[in-house]
Amino acid sequence: MMKHTLAVLAASTLSVPLMAQRTAPPAPAPVDAKVAALRDAALKDDVAYDIVEGMTTEIGPRLAGTEAEARARAWSVTKLKALGFKNVRIEPYQMPVWVRGVETGSILSPFPQALKLTALGNSGATPVGGLTAQVVVFKTYGDLAAAPAGSLAGKIAYVGNAMEPTQDGSSYGAFGPARFVGPAMAASKGAAAIVIRSIGTDHHRNPHTGTTNFPEGVTPIPSAALSVPDAELIERIATRGKPITMTLVLTPRMTGTHESGNVIAEVPGTDPKAGIVLVGGHLDSWDLGTGAIDDASGVAITAAAAKRILDGPRPRRTIRVVWFGAEEVGGFGGKAYAEAHKTERHATAGESDFGADRVWRFETNLPDSAKPVGDRLASALAPLGIARGAGVGGDGTDVGPIMALGVAAIDLNQSGTRYFDTHHTPDDTLDRVDPEQLRQNVAAWTTMLAIVANAPEEIGSVVPRK
Amino acid sequence: MMKHTLAVLAASTLSVPLMAQRTAPPAPAPVDAKVAALRDAALKDDVAYDIVEGMTTEIGPRLAGTEAEARARAWSVTKLKALGFKNVRIEPYQMPVWVRGVETGSILSPFPQALKLTALGNSGATPVGGLTAQVVVFKTYGDLAAAPAGSLAGKIAYVGNAMEPTQDGSSYGAFGPARFVGPAMAASKGAAAIVIRSIGTDHHRNPHTGTTNFPEGVTPIPSAALSVPDAELIERIATRGKPITMTLVLTPRMTGTHESGNVIAEVPGTDPKAGIVLVGGHLDSWDLGTGAIDDASGVAITAAAAKRILDGPRPRRTIRVVWFGAEEVGGFGGKAYAEAHKTERHATAGESDFGADRVWRFETNLPDSAKPVGDRLASALAPLGIARGAGVGGDGTDVGPIMALGVAAIDLNQSGTRYFDTHHTPDDTLDRVDPEQLRQNVAAWTTMLAIVANAPEEIGSVVPRK
Repeated sequence: MMKHTLAVLAASTLSVPLMAQRTAPPAPAPVDAKVAALRDAALKDDVAYDIVEGMTTEIGPRLAGTEAEARARAWSVTKLKALGFKNVRIEPYQMPVWVRGVETGSILSPFPQALKLTALGNSGATPVGGLTAQVVVFKTYGDLAAAPAGSLAGKIAYVGNAMEPTQDGSSYGAFGPARFVGPAMAASKGAAAIVIRSIGTDHHRNPHTGTTNFPEGVTPIPSAALSVPDAELIERIATRGKPITMTLVLTPRMTGTHESGNVIAEVPGTDPKAGIVLVGGHLDSWDLGTGAIDDASGVAITAAAAKRILDGPRPRRTIRVVWFGAEEVGGFGGKAYAEAHKTERHATAGESDFGADRVWRFETNLPDSAKPVGDRLASALAPLGIARGAGVGGDGTDVGPIMALGVAAIDLNQSGTRYFDTHHTPDDTLDRVDPEQLRQNVAAWTTMLAIVANAPEEIGSVVPRK
Repeated sequence: MMKHTLAVLAASTLSVPLMAQRTAPPAPAPVDAKVAALRDAALKDDVAYDIVEGMTTEIGPRLAGTEAEARARAWSVTKLKALGFKNVRIEPYQMPVWVRGVETGSILSPFPQALKLTALGNSGATPVGGLTAQVVVFKTYGDLAAAPAGSLAGKIAYVGNAMEPTQDGSSYGAFGPARFVGPAMAASKGAAAIVIRSIGTDHHRNPHTGTTNFPEGVTPIPSAALSVPDAELIERIATRGKPITMTLVLTPRMTGTHESGNVIAEVPGTDPKAGIVLVGGHLDSWDLGTGAIDDASGVAITAAAAKRILDGPRPRRTIRVVWFGAEEVGGFGGKAYAEAHKTERHATAGESDFGADRVWRFETNLPDSAKPVGDRLASALAPLGIARGAGVGGDGTDVGPIMALGVAAIDLNQSGTRYFDTHHTPDDTLDRVDPEQLRQNVAAWTTMLAIVANAPEEIGSVVPRK
């Protein structure tokens, strides 16, 4: 997963080239030789790939709150201790758990065909024998929203989208509402069920799951994503003008409250008062794939970078690596972390949760006192092909709650052009990870940690990004 | 599907450039202006795409011998009549029918993970409750073949392969035996079941089905293909040196003898003694996808080309378009056609069954009397980017039986670099068809028909390609 709001500031970057033409840019900050050496050595990193390979091979899918996620936590503790991290521990919390059941669907008429679909997280269930109803086709979420009250009574709503890949992931924010809130919208108009075109940019018969949200008091309706080719089939049939009848069998269920947890490891710093540098990703994954890019890569990248600092002189600031639990299904791990650690001083926070492709941009939300830190990051990251964006940093479901308390943000943005081909599908497997691009990520995070954890400047609190 | 022996003559093409340096090439045959006009007009064809769109939307999967294939035949008769073809008819035959059942599998130890797999055609069944056994890992079919007699007693054999894409499809012949005969080989050594790495070149969680063959007297064992990422998972686990236990549930079954059929349509010629020009593809498809590239495209391309001749002056030779039934599961339609029509004079035969990407090469098996026909084809096809290969034509499961009787062959070879990404998977859907490349195919087949159906030369029988 990634935060829905990545898109917010993308447009503002457009003004930078124009400004640059008018005033000569300031001289770049010099790059510390030790930072450069750490950065360049990280381009040969093998630790991150080893973590991704191990987690996908030895654990595989790890749905939040299930025994698979618990196995993943145990595996992670062993791995992080073996790497030499300090204070390795699990911080448990309780959460409601949703699990998938049977999921099949077919068009019955006018042209009988089986469909490839998958339930959305928090979906309600059909009767065990299935639900059969006429389909009302909406090409966009906007069309669904415009449907009259009560007009979907007893019907299955279909909602399409025209999502295309974007490097900054902004199309997810633009087209994702069909999944995020489409089911609740359809329920409010009386729909018996909803199927959406997957929020994805590929053309494979692998539907994209993900959570949907029903407000308190609204009974969840059966809610599924069709693979993109299946969605296109529905839309082609709709052009023929004949009524479409569909049958769905979806038997997911809530299993009650169960334990999940965050796995924490540290590189202790020399100056406890300077604040913690928090980095991480999420340990849980959707159940369809093995969570290679979402988010074994993120936990691997941040841990591999921290390991490079661990193996050198002790940094000024403590680096805390958190492998968050239960991100996909509602960010329970991030909320639990913020609640448990809100009284500790954090200098910065940043998470890696947008795959394994190269970092192309960084953005920060640093206090004025730490402006030189951002300038040093710009110089040191540039050789990796990473440019400073014009926006304000603050991405991340897991670090969001702690950043909301005023912790400074450092975002290292990965290139997302391939991300939504695979996101939340069975295809999220090890082969999706390009080892060279993964190493570039490790180099970027190593560079960031080397600069930020040792920065002599005060890094105090900030006004959180909206 | 495509014939397994496409590869046979590929190596001989290497000598052509060397020869060309030694002797000046002969002047190309002139191109008839009417042929050129037909060819160029076909580059704007919409008939072929309309057929593929219709067949995938209104019928979808059409497994041989099932009611879905029967629906496809009825649809085809309506379509071919609407296009104005003559003598449109179904020629039925009987065949044994295999159907898929439940198919699930998991690794139980050392690392529990669910697997994506699909039964191979003719696979045997496990008990309904499943079959659990230790896995013996073979990286290649050769390794399996080298296993001692009896060494697989009670085990599940895993067989890998290292297939990569090739333009001429030759890697299918090279690596396909793991599927074609691997199950029978494993059964002969006592295996309880077999799983193979899909014969495919993609990395998606969509396994590639296809037939496997058990000799008379050998009881079929449960036989499945894993998706490529799942196969890689097995091989990664194997490197850890711990025993692998797998459970499989496969419940396919033979349903007895049922009706299938060939759909035939004609463009009548003026000279019955000149022989029939036979073209076509296959109407049936595997059940996982909608058979867009395999082989709605082939039937569409050949029919769209024939339609262009139909709409002009009557040709010398009758063009017969056959949409063969039951190709995938054993070439029943092609055999039935040859048996029914063996006494009719055929001038040439050619089929389109290698997807929808552009034609890059043509090869013939023409009698000496018709050598100028080949020369005219070379000149007229060159503007489409199609070169004459150095091999002897004769591809095709469906036209194979009639060619075996001495009918001359004209092959228009499609580029296969993407074909085995999709072949026999759920991903064989309309979006795989590039309309521009489909049109180039129609232009190539139109050009061929315009030349061959009107050739004044005698086109007599030939010695079939081995």
